[in-house]
Amino acid sequence: QQLKNLVSRHPNLVIVALEATDPASIKAAATRVEEHLKGSGLNLLINNAAVLKLNTLESETSEDMSLVYTTNVTGPLLVSQAFLPLLKKAAQGSNQKGLSCSKAAIVNMSSEAGSIQNVLIWHVGQAISYRCSKAALNMLTKCQSLGYEGDRILSIAVHPGWVQTDMGISLSPEAPVTVDASVRGILNVLPTLSEKDNGAFVSWEGKVLPW
Amino acid sequence: QQLKNLVSRHPNLVIVALEATDPASIKAAATRVEEHLKGSGLNLLINNAAVLKLNTLESETSEDMSLVYTTNVTGPLLVSQAFLPLLKKAAQGSNQKGLSCSKAAIVNMSSEAGSIQNVLIWHVGQAISYRCSKAALNMLTKCQSLGYEGDRILSIAVHPGWVQTDMGISLSPEAPVTVDASVRGILNVLPTLSEKDNGAFVSWEGKVLPW
Repeated sequence: QQLKNLVSRHPNLVIVALEATDPASIKAAATRVEEHLKGSGLNLLINNAAVLKLNTLESETSEDMSLVYTTNVTGPLLVSQAFLPLLKKAAQGSNQKGLSCSKAAIVNMSSEAGSIQNVLIWHVGQAISYRCSKAALNMLTKCQSLGYEGDRILSIAVHPGWVQTDMGISLSPEAPVTVDASVRGILNVLPTLSEKDNGAFVSWEGKVLPW
Repeated sequence: QQLKNLVSRHPNLVIVALEATDPASIKAAATRVEEHLKGSGLNLLINNAAVLKLNTLESETSEDMSLVYTTNVTGPLLVSQAFLPLLKKAAQGSNQKGLSCSKAAIVNMSSEAGSIQNVLIWHVGQAISYRCSKAALNMLTKCQSLGYEGDRILSIAVHPGWVQTDMGISLSPEAPVTVDASVRGILNVLPTLSEKDNGAFVSWEGKVLPW
């Protein structure tokens, strides 16, 4: 409903359904986007879908490890594969030098909870499968940055903050960052990114985070 | 056959079958080890089982992402859960101060190929699912180090080198480290580890590696 409200206010928005754990759904969505673009390329792909399970080292299960990884890591991999031709088209059609989000970029929504160095808010929740998935997503981002640099596509991992979303609040109602502040922060950071940021891990406030 | 040859030369060795992707097999192995230990604890758990698939960003599949993660990350998680009571028993029964591999320790065999900072031998093979799994295993190790420090169990991620195993050679016959050198190196490193190394990432030569 919130998406529909957005569309009613911004008629240039198009909603395309995509189930990130279903390869057929991903391909169908890429085809629909290609139709909408009418021969143009895609400048910016933001992989935002993710799940979190509140397990500890003791309670973590094989099933949740698999489910969370499939959504949070394999999903962004397959979505990036499917949209790559459109991203390449945008890069090839651009006159801009270097790399940027207005030329062609993959933005993977990661989390500082996936920083092995920092292990953010461990005391709030161990969330083992989630942390492992986000560390793996950071690696995927680095691999994409190496693999797609030659196609002039920027790849970046972004920590949105501990946000007052359903997911953020499920960890604890203490989540400090409003959705509005997080989104505004990210919208300020994305235009500043260039080739020196390719394959980096940055926060919604523009800080570089350690792996 | 090589294992059987070892046992014939070292009658104190006991081989226990364990399929790291099968929770029932893991629990059965832990029960058999407990029987062999006759009331003693387990000092050292080395999670060594792993698989590698030679995929690129282009060819990586949902199936291989899942298979590699299940073996390389979920396996060590479940094995550590199953053997935790025996590791705790060893820690409780020890008079040694601090943490050490002779008291109680979990050693996760990782890889510098899973270092997001270094992305070792990218030019030799992208191996996306493998790299993502090893970054995730490093995170699991860090989580175990935080979760099990209170039980006086050391947790550590070890890079064995690019070794002339079947796996190492599958990447390229140029693998530089012999199995003998790698094993001797690791056997030299493990006894030097103490609480200051808990949750670290070290190479077979004893170097600390970046995440």
